[in-house]
Amino acid sequence: MDSPIEHYLQRIHAEIAGLKDGQPYSSIPAMAHVDPDHFGIVLATADGYVYEVGDTREEFSIQSISKPFTYGLALADRGMEEVDAKVDVEPSGDSFNEISLAEGTGRPANAMINAGALTATSLLRGAGGNSRFKRILNTYSAFAGRQLSVSERIYQSELKSGHRNHALGYLLRSFDIIESDPAPVIQDYFRQCSVMVNALDLAMMAATLANAGRNPLTNDQVLDIASVERVLSVMATCGMYDDAGSWMSSVGMPAKSGVGGGTIAVLPGQIGLAVYSPPLDGHGSSVRGVAVSQRLSHDLELHFVRAGRTGKSALRGSYDIGTTPSGIRRSEDAAALLRANAHRARILELNGDLLFAGAEAMVRELASLEDDVVLVVLDLRSVDEVSGVALRMFNEAASMLAVSGRQLAVVDSAGDVPAALAEGGQPVAAFGTRSAAVEWCEEELLRRYGADLVQPERILPADSPALAPLDAEAAKDLAGRMEELSYQDGDVIRRIGQRFSGVYFIASGHVQTLMPGPSGHRVKLNRLGAGMTFGEMALGEDKRQETTVKADGDVTLWRLPAEEISRMEENEPRLALQLWRALTQDAYTRVEQYLRETAVRVED
Amino acid sequence: MDSPIEHYLQRIHAEIAGLKDGQPYSSIPAMAHVDPDHFGIVLATADGYVYEVGDTREEFSIQSISKPFTYGLALADRGMEEVDAKVDVEPSGDSFNEISLAEGTGRPANAMINAGALTATSLLRGAGGNSRFKRILNTYSAFAGRQLSVSERIYQSELKSGHRNHALGYLLRSFDIIESDPAPVIQDYFRQCSVMVNALDLAMMAATLANAGRNPLTNDQVLDIASVERVLSVMATCGMYDDAGSWMSSVGMPAKSGVGGGTIAVLPGQIGLAVYSPPLDGHGSSVRGVAVSQRLSHDLELHFVRAGRTGKSALRGSYDIGTTPSGIRRSEDAAALLRANAHRARILELNGDLLFAGAEAMVRELASLEDDVVLVVLDLRSVDEVSGVALRMFNEAASMLAVSGRQLAVVDSAGDVPAALAEGGQPVAAFGTRSAAVEWCEEELLRRYGADLVQPERILPADSPALAPLDAEAAKDLAGRMEELSYQDGDVIRRIGQRFSGVYFIASGHVQTLMPGPSGHRVKLNRLGAGMTFGEMALGEDKRQETTVKADGDVTLWRLPAEEISRMEENEPRLALQLWRALTQDAYTRVEQYLRETAVRVED
Repeated sequence: MDSPIEHYLQRIHAEIAGLKDGQPYSSIPAMAHVDPDHFGIVLATADGYVYEVGDTREEFSIQSISKPFTYGLALADRGMEEVDAKVDVEPSGDSFNEISLAEGTGRPANAMINAGALTATSLLRGAGGNSRFKRILNTYSAFAGRQLSVSERIYQSELKSGHRNHALGYLLRSFDIIESDPAPVIQDYFRQCSVMVNALDLAMMAATLANAGRNPLTNDQVLDIASVERVLSVMATCGMYDDAGSWMSSVGMPAKSGVGGGTIAVLPGQIGLAVYSPPLDGHGSSVRGVAVSQRLSHDLELHFVRAGRTGKSALRGSYDIGTTPSGIRRSEDAAALLRANAHRARILELNGDLLFAGAEAMVRELASLEDDVVLVVLDLRSVDEVSGVALRMFNEAASMLAVSGRQLAVVDSAGDVPAALAEGGQPVAAFGTRSAAVEWCEEELLRRYGADLVQPERILPADSPALAPLDAEAAKDLAGRMEELSYQDGDVIRRIGQRFSGVYFIASGHVQTLMPGPSGHRVKLNRLGAGMTFGEMALGEDKRQETTVKADGDVTLWRLPAEEISRMEENEPRLALQLWRALTQDAYTRVEQYLRETAVRVED
Repeated sequence: MDSPIEHYLQRIHAEIAGLKDGQPYSSIPAMAHVDPDHFGIVLATADGYVYEVGDTREEFSIQSISKPFTYGLALADRGMEEVDAKVDVEPSGDSFNEISLAEGTGRPANAMINAGALTATSLLRGAGGNSRFKRILNTYSAFAGRQLSVSERIYQSELKSGHRNHALGYLLRSFDIIESDPAPVIQDYFRQCSVMVNALDLAMMAATLANAGRNPLTNDQVLDIASVERVLSVMATCGMYDDAGSWMSSVGMPAKSGVGGGTIAVLPGQIGLAVYSPPLDGHGSSVRGVAVSQRLSHDLELHFVRAGRTGKSALRGSYDIGTTPSGIRRSEDAAALLRANAHRARILELNGDLLFAGAEAMVRELASLEDDVVLVVLDLRSVDEVSGVALRMFNEAASMLAVSGRQLAVVDSAGDVPAALAEGGQPVAAFGTRSAAVEWCEEELLRRYGADLVQPERILPADSPALAPLDAEAAKDLAGRMEELSYQDGDVIRRIGQRFSGVYFIASGHVQTLMPGPSGHRVKLNRLGAGMTFGEMALGEDKRQETTVKADGDVTLWRLPAEEISRMEENEPRLALQLWRALTQDAYTRVEQYLRETAVRVED
């Protein structure tokens, strides 16, 4: 099936191709003979997927679209303060080649006009044996994700006919804004304007800005996030020359155009857009570039005001552990104590990207917890990105919980948050699954409120909760038919596909059950402890073991063998009947537990 | 527990209270005697939760913070085109009371300077018997969520000493930018500047802008989203007077300040911020207002570039229905056919807010589906907000799927998407639960690839898959002990808390099982059809029914009563044994199904 987005872009391309206004840039002779009908649109997502229509592999000179990237490099080289001392960040309200220097100081209004771009170029360092221009070219190439090169012809032509830029360079030198010989600065500036790109390159450069400075295809961190933030801020107010306000109103994305016919726009976190079409409007921006940007912003809701709806849904649920008990079978007294104290252990399920608003929702919930809540579990399995502010809030929340005598646990298989908390001096209990965290809560509640009810470390099969429905004699009789087995950490006890071989009662230690997920990787399902059973799963539909069961540490088991069960069915049907009844009851206890978890999920 | 956010704001408040620069506004005599030490900070989330520190209930005049709200009202009254003809949207680079009119036309540069605000006021309509000013005051009040009023003293003082604004009004009249008598316009302008607010009011006004024009507490849609978008765009470039660029760089949120000492900033979708502190800097903005905005933007990562990371995680999973079968027990042939064709039915699980990037991820996955996929289920239960562009993409995707001969179904209990698709001419099958959608897929696959295997509409208990493990005679024997029952749509068959009363076999029709979720509302769990059983759940841990079972349409059932089972256990243990074995097997088939769903979720 074709992509509706491709179809949409093809339609927009066909419509806007009808727009014949404007003239290609003619002041530089080497650029005068482009085909005015060339027209390409590329939309690249922040994760690097590309949609392209039209002449997207046609090369042209980058011209002023170089400015934000050189500015970014200057910020990375010199730091914000040093760059700010030389170049301001205010829209000039003037056109791109205006000589907008501040009265008295000569400081250019911003780095998107020629004076500011010349100054930014002068601030760059040569490094690692590379000349200044080599570094510029390498940086642009890293943004684009392929090696770019310079058109010597356009460079020579610019050098010859760019009188105004020569004048600007010397003027900036006269104000000591440029502190070195301006001639090589001017040359490097002309060279960077003459770097050849196509619309695909520009879209990847924009997508790299959208992706917080990391090229989504090469995974190269080309520019730090603080510099990206500054570059996009200046693009937002100064990128479209004297059009800043109407651009912000009609497009609402940081952008930059160049007289070579290119236009880029960036929606942080979402997309990079590039358009190539040489005919320019009176501001020196591509007529079709502006039209496509406006159209896409409107149709795809890319304006920063519309695109900024996020984090609302960070807190997916908040409930106590009574809602999703661990499913461990306990004595009646222990079960009653847990029921009475379940409200003391609370699970918060979080979701999506945790920016300020999401972290705030979590913290708000934590602050409103009843006084008698003593255990808090943050389930972070559905959390994607955790911002710095969210990590700081986790830390503050953890220390405040600690002060009020509460314990915090985290369900997070990736483990970024537990690591950050430990670094911040707030180590927390971390679990891979929710049921493990709930089990921890239950043990902790038993320890705090009913120490005598904590499950013993070793349980004889006759005392197994699964056999509780049997009369004492029958349980003892069954226990006598079992064989004892021992396993070491990591041993596989049951394998997927094996036939039913009996019911296994855990006497001491733990086992882990695993199952392949949709992508084929094995995922951890449950950790079972003393008193629990397994092996009955092979009684299900396929009559084969559906999970792998592995020893998690040293384990001792009692097995009631399948052959022994068959023999009983034959010779002692009343005993077998009691066993099957108990197993049915045990199975439905598990079904109940899963249904409770489902109910939580459905209501989310 | 106190909130870490409150603590943080208290710390910032204490720190920035040390900043003693600036002087309160003194040009209007009635405003000259404010206490320069008054200092309040209010942070309101887009859902209306409020954090406040300091003097947040102290009243002061709104002054220029009125401008964006009056501009918004003008846009709503007249439409964008008519307003744009009178007021531009470009930053002027001048200070707030500069006479920035375009040469020749007299058109003000933007609505955030006095000339533009006077013009916007002149464009407002009186309506519904309300004077122009009454409408202004009502609109501000709706934004704030409480009735505001005017300080007559400040109004009179402004009227007497605001010579420059009188001049501006007549000048605008001379250019025909204001088309009516300027005197009442000037009066209404002064009145709106004299509206008294506190920091809490301003924060709610800002939060209403952040919440797309809807006051989050009163739920009143005060301004349409298109006008909000425009207002915030102009605030972004022109809200802080001649400081637009450095504000965008250092704060990165649309904002507005007033000489009364107020400052607001808006992060769309997340927060509204208000600060009150009278001493002003040289631009006429509150010194502490600027400092707090910069500090919070940095610490809480509120800059639009950092806050714009969203939609990355929209596609949570994509797998075929073999991964999470419906759990309906079928004949061996039917089960084999479904296993062989499971890859033809694909489930896409979506998550969070569906903005462009999220919708794009979905569409990308749809476009890349293998040719042999014929059924597509979009699971939207975890989706929060669906943007207009996402709805349009759903429509396009649905029609492209239809063209390629595929069927689309949606799991969405709220049902916004199915409704929008139906409106767009693409009605889809909509289900409340994933298992219902999977059941639909399975029936559809059977219909397409094995018509003879479709489950009959009526199933006798002896043919029930649950009894398949029994030998034919035993099954027949059991069937003879059952009683037939009929229920009508909506009848409650089993209630939560009832004791085990037997096993129910569905002969024809469907039942729905329900369970209370964490918040107490009943959620739908499963829809069961002919051949399936229920009632055994009451065998679980509490020995009580854990779910409510309701007839979904007319239903006929066969019940094997609990007393009959007890009698069998006593008198015919071998038959009872066969029953319990079958029930155990059935139970573990369900456990398997839940484990498979768990594995999908864990891997998400």
